[in-house]
Formats: sequence, structure tokens, C-alpha cells
Amino acid sequence: PLAVAVAAVEVEATVMYGRYTQELGVYAKEEAARLRDGGVRDGGGLRRNTSVRSRAADLLEYEKDPCAKCQMCASRCQKFLISRVGEDWIFLILLGLLMALVSWVMDYAIAFCQEAQKWMYGGLDSNMLLQYIAWVTYPVVLITFSAGFTQILAPQAVGSGIPEMKTILRGVVLKEYLTFKTFVAKVIGLTCALGSGMPLGKEGPFVHVASLCAALLSKFMAALFGGTYMNELRNTEMLSAACAVGVGCCFAAPIGGVLFSIEVTSTFFAVRNYWRGFFAATFSAFIFRVLAVWNQEEETITALFKTRFRLDFPFDLQELPAFAILGIACGFGGALFVYLNRLIVECMRKQKTINKFLLRKRLVYPALVTLLVSTLTFPPGFGQFMAGQLTQHESLVALFDNRTWCRQGVAEEFDYISHSHAWKHPQVNVFITLILFIIMKFWMSAVATTMPVPCGAFMPVFLIGAAFGRLVGEIMAAMFPDGIHADGSVYPIVPGGYAVVGAAALSGAVTHTVSTAVIVFELTGQISHILPVMIAVILANAVAQSLQPSLYDSIIRIKKLPYLPELGMGHHEKYNIRVEDIMVRDVRFITLTSSYRDLQEVLLTGQLKTLALVESRDSMILLGSIERSQLQSLLSHQLGRQRRLEHLRQLAQDNGTHDHLPSLATDSTPSSPCAHTHAHINATTNTNTRQGVRFLVSTQQIAEWEEQQLDMPVDFKNCKIDPAPFQLVERTSLHKTHTIFSLLGLDHAYVTSTGRLVGVVSLKEVRMCIDLAVVSAY
Amino acid sequence: PLAVAVAAVEVEATVMYGRYTQELGVYAKEEAARLRDGGVRDGGGLRRNTSVRSRAADLLEYEKDPCAKCQMCASRCQKFLISRVGEDWIFLILLGLLMALVSWVMDYAIAFCQEAQKWMYGGLDSNMLLQYIAWVTYPVVLITFSAGFTQILAPQAVGSGIPEMKTILRGVVLKEYLTFKTFVAKVIGLTCALGSGMPLGKEGPFVHVASLCAALLSKFMAALFGGTYMNELRNTEMLSAACAVGVGCCFAAPIGGVLFSIEVTSTFFAVRNYWRGFFAATFSAFIFRVLAVWNQEEETITALFKTRFRLDFPFDLQELPAFAILGIACGFGGALFVYLNRLIVECMRKQKTINKFLLRKRLVYPALVTLLVSTLTFPPGFGQFMAGQLTQHESLVALFDNRTWCRQGVAEEFDYISHSHAWKHPQVNVFITLILFIIMKFWMSAVATTMPVPCGAFMPVFLIGAAFGRLVGEIMAAMFPDGIHADGSVYPIVPGGYAVVGAAALSGAVTHTVSTAVIVFELTGQISHILPVMIAVILANAVAQSLQPSLYDSIIRIKKLPYLPELGMGHHEKYNIRVEDIMVRDVRFITLTSSYRDLQEVLLTGQLKTLALVESRDSMILLGSIERSQLQSLLSHQLGRQRRLEHLRQLAQDNGTHDHLPSLATDSTPSSPCAHTHAHINATTNTNTRQGVRFLVSTQQIAEWEEQQLDMPVDFKNCKIDPAPFQLVERTSLHKTHTIFSLLGLDHAYVTSTGRLVGVVSLKEVRMCIDLAVVSAY
Repeated sequence: PLAVAVAAVEVEATVMYGRYTQELGVYAKEEAARLRDGGVRDGGGLRRNTSVRSRAADLLEYEKDPCAKCQMCASRCQKFLISRVGEDWIFLILLGLLMALVSWVMDYAIAFCQEAQKWMYGGLDSNMLLQYIAWVTYPVVLITFSAGFTQILAPQAVGSGIPEMKTILRGVVLKEYLTFKTFVAKVIGLTCALGSGMPLGKEGPFVHVASLCAALLSKFMAALFGGTYMNELRNTEMLSAACAVGVGCCFAAPIGGVLFSIEVTSTFFAVRNYWRGFFAATFSAFIFRVLAVWNQEEETITALFKTRFRLDFPFDLQELPAFAILGIACGFGGALFVYLNRLIVECMRKQKTINKFLLRKRLVYPALVTLLVSTLTFPPGFGQFMAGQLTQHESLVALFDNRTWCRQGVAEEFDYISHSHAWKHPQVNVFITLILFIIMKFWMSAVATTMPVPCGAFMPVFLIGAAFGRLVGEIMAAMFPDGIHADGSVYPIVPGGYAVVGAAALSGAVTHTVSTAVIVFELTGQISHILPVMIAVILANAVAQSLQPSLYDSIIRIKKLPYLPELGMGHHEKYNIRVEDIMVRDVRFITLTSSYRDLQEVLLTGQLKTLALVESRDSMILLGSIERSQLQSLLSHQLGRQRRLEHLRQLAQDNGTHDHLPSLATDSTPSSPCAHTHAHINATTNTNTRQGVRFLVSTQQIAEWEEQQLDMPVDFKNCKIDPAPFQLVERTSLHKTHTIFSLLGLDHAYVTSTGRLVGVVSLKEVRMCIDLAVVSAY
Repeated sequence: PLAVAVAAVEVEATVMYGRYTQELGVYAKEEAARLRDGGVRDGGGLRRNTSVRSRAADLLEYEKDPCAKCQMCASRCQKFLISRVGEDWIFLILLGLLMALVSWVMDYAIAFCQEAQKWMYGGLDSNMLLQYIAWVTYPVVLITFSAGFTQILAPQAVGSGIPEMKTILRGVVLKEYLTFKTFVAKVIGLTCALGSGMPLGKEGPFVHVASLCAALLSKFMAALFGGTYMNELRNTEMLSAACAVGVGCCFAAPIGGVLFSIEVTSTFFAVRNYWRGFFAATFSAFIFRVLAVWNQEEETITALFKTRFRLDFPFDLQELPAFAILGIACGFGGALFVYLNRLIVECMRKQKTINKFLLRKRLVYPALVTLLVSTLTFPPGFGQFMAGQLTQHESLVALFDNRTWCRQGVAEEFDYISHSHAWKHPQVNVFITLILFIIMKFWMSAVATTMPVPCGAFMPVFLIGAAFGRLVGEIMAAMFPDGIHADGSVYPIVPGGYAVVGAAALSGAVTHTVSTAVIVFELTGQISHILPVMIAVILANAVAQSLQPSLYDSIIRIKKLPYLPELGMGHHEKYNIRVEDIMVRDVRFITLTSSYRDLQEVLLTGQLKTLALVESRDSMILLGSIERSQLQSLLSHQLGRQRRLEHLRQLAQDNGTHDHLPSLATDSTPSSPCAHTHAHINATTNTNTRQGVRFLVSTQQIAEWEEQQLDMPVDFKNCKIDPAPFQLVERTSLHKTHTIFSLLGLDHAYVTSTGRLVGVVSLKEVRMCIDLAVVSAY
């Protein structure tokens, strides 16, 4: 049917970054089938197998669960909670340790891959064709393998992972994104993708890997120590720490990692989580760097891209306008990158022929992109004009170099141990090399990050920013060969400083964060350029935020993830929308006087997770909300085996026979279309088959009894009622609704008017309403 | 009456850090009088003139106000909001500029004061007695002036200000803390206090000054541009940015400033505020440093306490245990500092004779403390063993020095331009000097910060930490003169690095923050010691947090500010307390069928700001809550002049006379003890006196009419009802209640059971309950 088809398409769009590589094949069909059984809400492909849970409800369970059942367990509960805190720290240490190991091993493997490519390429220097084939085949094989592997094992591992984490931390559980399969696919896929030398980043996927690691560790600890680790609120806290660990151990930047993860994933942030993040990220970064020392790669713990700018006079005050212009330009560049990235995906999707072809041959697209990119970077070919033989790491080290390139006219001045010579072409100016590098890398990165492999865009963007900064710096150095400083001493301009500023500004613009400033300080080990970096990052952000959404928000929109978008600064039309404009007026509810029949009807017609309880149909005074599962158990208790048996026993006694035990193998009962009733009957059937059929009650009698039971009023005594579901008023503005929804992580809220239920508004309505406005704004 | 006396004592405890200096004098009496009229809640000295407002309610107003009245003003509203965003940035720039100027001028004045003291002291080197008198008199005069000035102008300016800001940002409005008087008192008092050279800090008060500045700027802008600047939600956002500015422009540390202010003031943090903070703090730090360059103090913008540690090998891996031990020791030291500080205040309060004496002569205490401290630091006296002649700034520069002191056996090696020679006594080892410095400064700082002058404890603690770190570093350097590194090259130990680590760790331990790590990087301009700093800070925090509350929380408790304390990690007994244990069961409510008489009674007996509206006395179903002012206006409308006149006109018409106009000069009406009714009658009286008495209606008739009016059921049509006041369940745990109260900034919440109102729990109950537990824990 149509619904299934819609669901299938939706699923696929969610799972994949690029829809074009995914056939409407086995996976989608399975998913669709799962959805049909599982709990698709009304029309909602948007909901799918995601279960949105109210954080407030979690909070309640959080404390209720260990204690709710008995009053006597107070001391046990206390012990439990103390041990929980201890376990928290153990958990964070384990997470940090694990992630540092993963990060280090991955880096090692990536370096090995890149060495292997260089070795192959270097060994074949007699024949350029062979050299070209070696240069090109290697990345194509790696990327194709990566794409195929993730495709087969876990298509959820594709892409950055930050958008998904943002959605998950918002309270939407995307369970398939936190499985062991995804972990394996992401780690191996990412290693291969980065090993290929394509302009891809490690940082976004690493946030996802860390979260996966945390989720799996939680499960493992739960299996080991019992239920503590199953609480969802706790998991959210741990995931939020894990995001910090991901960035922290990827760049050895604990502070920047914590801040970046806060900025990227949160709207409201609990300061107590900040602690966990700091602790875990520091520990992880520490281990990550210690491993490097133990492996004799480094003498001691220092920054990853250590710079050596002079300390006493890092920059002149008069250089600040140049830094400001650099920041503004990076802002435009960042917005352009996000736009370009989205444009490529949308183009591919709209072009029906391309789309169809790519959907059928899903590995063709990454292979083609890789072929194109590696052909263009082939060092003896076009690559010689854009430092093509350097890896990302080498390029960055060269760009952060504290010497000035443009004045080094003669080749002798170059230190051949460093990678700076790659930038210096015998015939071509260093400016041309830099400009070509920037332009080529810009579109290559935008294209490469749309490939269906695990990859991030942070590092490529960072590199482009560094190159752009270096370009500006070199121009400044050429314009003012003796520095700008007027009186006395000569302080030449440091183009490396511009590179640092550019890197922070462009990556800040693309991700809409200011913490990239902190990340560059930790990456370079120098903080002397703090003011230029801060100024450039803030300006870049101001420009980029007014032009485009952040890269992660853009991907969220492309993937149609169930995330509540931010209310941006510019969208003031939404201040005039009120809840009454968007609420659903046809609320499903039950009343205090409802019969079981009403209950059954409500359960059959809708798929809502919670139902409103009102006093009566006339007064409509909202008394609370009840979870679907509670109602189901009420109903199944009423019509369940226990009561059936009792009734039959009663009947039997009335008939004077003691062997009056039942056969209820009567699927023909007119009033049991409900799934759980079926299940119950089946269970009963099995039992009875074993016991043997001893007496046959007429189906008529059973049906009569059922009808009678259904007409009885519901007894809410043994039912958990949430007596204070979140309520809004009709005139509540969209802005306030948005704030409350994101602050409390709500799924839905009832709209009341002096206690009377008049409607319901769910995340879906709010999201749709904002989406419409946001889409129309860009 | 007793209530007033209690209120007076409470007020005074709130206003002053040290209660001992405040007479139960004019101020307290005035306050008490104000309270009596204003709105003291039941027994509550705790509530006083603070009005707690629900943030959710603010949010509502935030958007409702411009639009609520007409549907046609949509476009106007839009324009208004767009201009608002622009004004935000203007506001932040102005704030940054202003604060940078204040900070720079203050620094300049402080430096001038200290120079003056040195000059006086230096000029009198012929006579030691004169020298001593000059050395001692100068700070005593300054501190006494500072104490007297703040006493007279605004006693609220006393102390750090961070605890107050924490309370204000929690949603409690302490209006007297944000006045122009307080601003003047704080700025001048702080300048004098710091100019005296006592171990006091600038940072805490600067947070307060920045907030004052923001509040005043808001008022000014409101007067200039209209109502936009009066919104409370907006003010909170701006205050939160102002706190960041305060730290940022005090240390020229924008990132650290933002993080520190978040950690110190917030529980839940909106990431969008982070932006404003970053922008304003960066701008402010920039201007602050640019002013120094323009004033020829510096060649270019660099860090405030620039260090020059080597970059390639900042520390050895094997030194990390030493850093960890330093961190743990700082944790204990920090807890001891907080304990000592509180002990001094409590001792003073408990000793009745001391207390009485100090209350009478309020300037004696600061003068005595200053005399003691400056006597002990007198350079030719005991001061020679503890580098007494150095100012805080000079000491810090010396401690962060990158040379090793302990090996400099001969005096010639010292660079006499630097301040290191002060640490080297001809007879005494440098270790002894350092130990004496640490011990003396430790108790001196703890005592000095209890003086009733505007002062913070951050900087003194920072300095002690630096000295302690330097001590550990020097010991390490003495133990391993050639460094620890095993293979090949010799890397001597850098004791200055230990000083940096110690400073961050001790200040982190005292304030319970990790962002001190970022502050030291920005202060020193070097980030090479990032891992040791992070490790030490985290360990110091872990130790200090398990032993004592933070200094600011400790002051909040001493001052009895209306702040909801944190639920610490260790307080698990609170997981077993439920709302039903602490709620007030005797809720004042009105029903849908209430008469105006009931209304009047409720208004007269309680002082609650909002009242519950229930369906009926039997059902007790909660329909919403109504603000007191709404009810008052309902009541005054019912008994008001308009209706009185109408009634009298009616009477007159009935009597056939047209000149039947009223005299209502009847204070004897039995049913008008309510203040507003009085007011109304008085107003009417005035009008009538002017109009002249024309006809006399018998008091009997009026009273009858009033009785009749009071017996009518209330018409809620024109009354604003909040239809969704926050509700809890009886079994909600204290932990959840706490989370919800702090997340939403609630003042009170109703406790319901299936929609039926059973109790109310307010901030007061929650706070008292937590306080009891916390106090018992420490």
C-alpha cells in the first residue's frame, strides 16, 4: 500500500546521506515491514521505529524504579545510588581509555595505509602510467570497500554522525544508530575512507564512534552489574559525555572537544554534564597522547600540530583589520560550502536518470568521485600545482609553518625535511599554488563528503581554512616585508598565524560554532593569537549564520531526521504563530466513566503512545495521561486468561460438573480483533491442548461473556496515571512552545483551556511548522 | 513585633557578608518597614523584598505583550523584534566597551595607588619607624575609607558579588543589588580596597560590576528606546552575558570568562546565551588590551602574565605524578580555605562580645585586619621572609618565571630588573621563603576576604596556588637537577610550569570550576601545559567537592541568600524524600463558585503571589492559578467606584431625585479592611470632597450594598488565569523536584493527585529540605 511505500522511501532517506546509492531493496522492505507491525503513527513516516520519550518521564522512572514497589528498600536504594556514582567514574574512565585506543589504532592504520600508497607510488617512478594506476587504484579500492562494507553491515554508519547524535540527544531514540554492527562498520569504514587520502575528516564520525562505544559499554555494564545501566536519562548523560570524548581524543583537545560537542549537540545544557565530559575527554586525550609517547613517535606530550610562532610579538594591532576581513571571507566561504554540499545532494536526487542509475549501482558513485579526485591530485599531473602528494596531516603541518614562503625565492632556503617544498613549484608562484589548492579542495571536499562512506567534513574544511589563511598571510607578508610595526624593532608578519586564524574561522563558519577557536589553540599548542582567532571566528559565524544553516542542520534536513530545529535569530514570523493554529483538535481520550469497549476502540483506531484521561465527555477536564501499554494491560487483564478461567469455573460449578475446564480455541469470538487478545487466546490454546479438551463451552457463551465484560466501566485503580502531563494554552506562541519542547525534551503537550482539553500538539506539528518557515527563509 | 525583628536580622545577614559590622540601625529598620508593607510571606524572612518570578511566565509575557492586545499588529511586532536583535548587539558592544574602560581605568588607579605607597615607603628609608608608619597607614586609610564608603552608600556592594549574581540568575530578583548606588560604591570601594595592596581580588566584584553595568545600561536603553529593555527574560540573558564580560575583561580571558561564568552561575545553560557571552567578552577583552597598547604599556596585544616556557618539551611524562599530587594537595588546600573562611565569619558571629563591639564600631574590624596584615608584610620586618614588598601582580609575574630559583646560589645570577630577587633572602633558603609566603598568605587571604569591602578571593587564591606550585616545582628541580628524561637530551624541570598548574588547581578547588584551566592559558598566553593543568584541576575539584561546598555556595549559605542549592554527588539520602513529605497541605485556593467574600478572605489571610483555582471544594480539581494582583483587581472592580456610583445612581433614580450623588466617606463600612479597598475609598473621598457633598446615603445602605456585592459569585471572565500551573505528584522525588525547579526557575508547584489539588510545594520548602541535608553532610 501507499503507506508502506512512503515509509520505505522515508527510511531510506533517513538511513543514507545520499539516497541515490540505496536501492528500494531488501533493507527498505524489511524496514517497512517492521514499521507496519511496530508502531507507525497515523500518517507518519517521520516517526518510524523511533520512539520519542519524554525526559521528564525518564526522570520519574529514574528514581521510581528502584523504590516504587516497596517502601522497605530505602537503604538498598541508597546503596544502589552510591554505587551508581562510583560506576559513573569507572564508566567514564573505561570510555576514555577505549576511545583513546581506538583513535590511536585508527590513526596508526591510516598512516600505514597512506605510507603504503606512497611506497607504491614511489616504487613505480620509472613508468608514469603505472604510477598513475597505482595512485588512482589504491584510493578507489579503499573507498569502494568502505562504501560496500558499510552498505552491507550497517548503512547507518554512513556520514558524519553528528546530526544523528544531535537528534538522539534531543530525546529521539534512533536505536539502529547505536548497535554493535554500526560500530564495526563505522570504525572499519572510516579507517579505509581516511586511509584512501581523500579529503575526508575523522572528527564527526568519531563523535558517533564514541557514542556507539558509550552505548555498547552501557549495555555491557548493564549485563555485568544489572539494571543501573539501562536507564535512559543516564544514557543521555553518558552520550553527551561521549560526544566530548569523541572530539577530545580525535584532536587531543579536551576543552575544545567539550565545548564543540555542547555547541553542536545541545540547546540547553546541564552544567553537571559538563563535568563528566571534561573528565572523560581529558582522560581520553591524555591516553591518546601517551600512546604516541610510548610508541616513540613523540618525546613527550605536546600538541598535535605544534606551532612555533614567536611569543613576545605574535601580531601587530594594525594587522587586526586583515584578520577581521579573513574572518568575514571565511564566513561567506563557510556558507558557500554548506550550500554547495546540499546542492550536490539535491541535484543527484532530482536528476531522475542519474538517480535511478546510482540507486541500482550503489558503489559506482563513490568510485567515480574517488577516481576524479585522485586523478586531479596525481602529483606529476595537475597535483603538482596544488601540493597533491601531501596528506591532510602533512599539508596542515606545512601551512602552520612559522616561516614565510613568498620571500623564499631560491630553492636552497627550503628545509627539505619539511613538506613546504611541495608548495613551491619551479614555474608557478606560491600564490597560484595556494589559490588552486583552495579552489580544488573546496569543491572536492564538498563532493567527497556526500559519498556514502563514514566521513566528516570538519578536517577538510579546517585544511581549506588554513590554506586560505596562509594565502592572506603570504599576501600580507609580501605587502609589508618588514612588518607593519612603526617604531623601532622590525617584527615580520607571521603567515602561519593567519593560517591558524583561517582554519578556526572557516571550520567555525561551516559548523556554526565558536569553540573551533579553542580547538585550534589545543591543536597548535599556542594561544598567542587568541584575539585574532576569536574576532575572526565570531565574524565568520555572524556571516555564515545569517546565510545558511550549519552543515549539521543542513544534513539533518536532507536526511529528514526527527529533530526540532532551532528558532533562528531571523525568523520572527514565528512569533505570530500560536498553538491554536497548529494543534490537532481531534484528540483521542478516555473518560473516567469509559467502558472497556471504548478503551478497545481507542486502542484499535490510533497508535498514540499516551492517551489523555478526561473527567467526562461533557466537562472534558483533563485529569492526566495514561500510557498505551497500561491501557493494553488493563484490557488484557479484563479479558485475560485468569478471568476467563474464573468465569468458566463459575459456569462449571453452576452446571454441577467439576471437570468443566475450558477450551477457548475460539478464534471466532466476534470481539477480539485486538492483537494481544489474540496472543492471549493462543497462549491459552496451547495450554489447553496440553491439558486436553475436556469440556466444550459454546462459543455463544464466551462471546456473551466477552460482550458483558467489555460493557463494564474501566477500573483505573491498578493503572499508572501521569497526573500532570504537560499542558499549554491556546494562545501560547510557537516560540514558547519551542523553548518548552526543547528544554524538557517533550514529545507532546496537551492544549487546555481552564482545565478543559481542547487539543494536542506534538513534536511533529511543531517541527513541521518551523520547517516550513525555515525552508521559506533560506 | 517579632516578625519585624526577625525580618530585620535576616535582611542584615543578607546584605552584609560579615554580619558583625552592621548595626541593627537605620537601614535595617527601613528595610523592615518596607517589608511589613511590601509583602512578607507567612513566616518568611527568607522571602522579603525579593520577588521570585517564574521564568515560564516571563517567557509568556515576552511574546504576549507586544501582540496580545490586537491581532492587527503582526507586522509592527515583527519590526519590533528585528530591531530588538540589532539592539542586542549594540547593547553587548556598549557593555563590552564600558566594562573594558572601567577595568582599565581601575587597573590604572590601583597601580597608581600602589606606586604611591612604594614611593612613600621608598622615600622614607632613613627612618624605619616612619617607614613603618607610612607602610601601615596607607592601606589602613584606604581600606577604612572603602569600608565606610560602601557602608554609607550601598552596603550591598560588600563582598564578591558572584553569590548574588548566582541567585539573581536563578530567577530571584534582588533589586537592591542592581542599583546605580551599588555600582558607584562597588567601583570606588573596590579600587580603594585593591589599591591598599591587601590580598584581595578583582574578579568576583568585577562580575558584579559588569552585571550592574548591564542592568543600568538596560534601564538607560529602555528610557531611550522604549519598553524592549524592560523584559525580565531578556535581562537575565544580558546578565548572564555580563558575568562573562566581567571575568573576560578582568583577566583579558574571554573564553575562560565565559566558561567560568557559566560554571559559577548556572545550573542549566541555554547555548544561545553562550554566543552573547562570547561576543561581549571577546570585544571587552580586546578593548581592554588595546587600551594598554595605546597607553604605550605594551607593544602589542599579548597575555596579561605572559610566560616563556620552552615549547618543544614543556614537561616530561614522568613528571605527571608530581602534577597529580600537586592537584590533590590543592584540592585539600581549597577545601581548607573555604572552611577557614566560613569558620572566621561564624566565630565572629558566635562570640557575642566581639560581635556586639564590632556591630557598634563597624570600621574597626577592617582597620584591625589591615593593620595586622600590613604589619606582617612590612618588608624590613617579617615581610623580608615572604617577599612582602611585592604586589600581587609582581609576585605572580615572578612565580611564573621560567627560570629555576633553587639553583641560583649566587646573587649575581638574578636579573635585578625582575622581581625574583625579593624571593631570595640572604640568610634564608628560597624554600623557606615560599613556605612562609604560602602559609601567611593563606590565612591572610581567608581573613581579608571577610572584611566588609568589595573584594573577591579568586586572585589571592590564585597567587597562593602559584606559590605552592612553584614550591613543588623547585623541590622537583632540586631533586632532579638535570630533568627526569632518560634518553639523550637534558630537559631541566620548569618550576614556572608547576606554578601555573598550582594556580589553576587551587583556584579551581576553591571555586569548584574546571574553567580556571582555560583562564590560566589565557592569562599566561601559553597552552603547552594543558594536560598537567587539566589533570591537576580535575583532581583538585574531585577532592574539594567531596569535602566542602564552593566558596560561593558557602557565602550564599552564610548570607542566607534565597538560592536553591545544588544536589551534590554525595547526597543520596535525598533520593528517598518525596514531595508528599515536604509539601504544604494547607493550600489556599478559590473555587469557581467562590463569592467575592471568599476572595477577600483569602487575600487578607495570605500573602501568596498566586492562588490556586479549583473546580469546587469537594472535587478539588485544579483548573489553574491566578495572580494575586488579578484577584485584587477583580475585587476592587466589584466594590469599586464605578459600580458604587452606578448603584447610587440607581438608588437615586429609585428615589426620584437626580442629585442623589454619593458621599462614601465612610471608613466605618464593616467589610473593607483590605488595603486596596481603603485606597479606593480614599480616592473616592477626595473626588467627592471636590465635588461637594450633595446627598447623604445612610451608611446602613452602603454596608448593605457591599455585603450584597460580596455575596455574589466571582465572575472570572475578565481575569487572566494561568491554565497550566506546574504540577507534581505526591510521589515525585526531591531529586526530580529539584531538577524541575532549577530547570524552569519555578517558584512553586502544585501537588495533585489525579487532577485533585492536595498540596503546594514552594522553593522555600525545597531549599530548606536540601539545606538540612547538606548542612548535615558537611
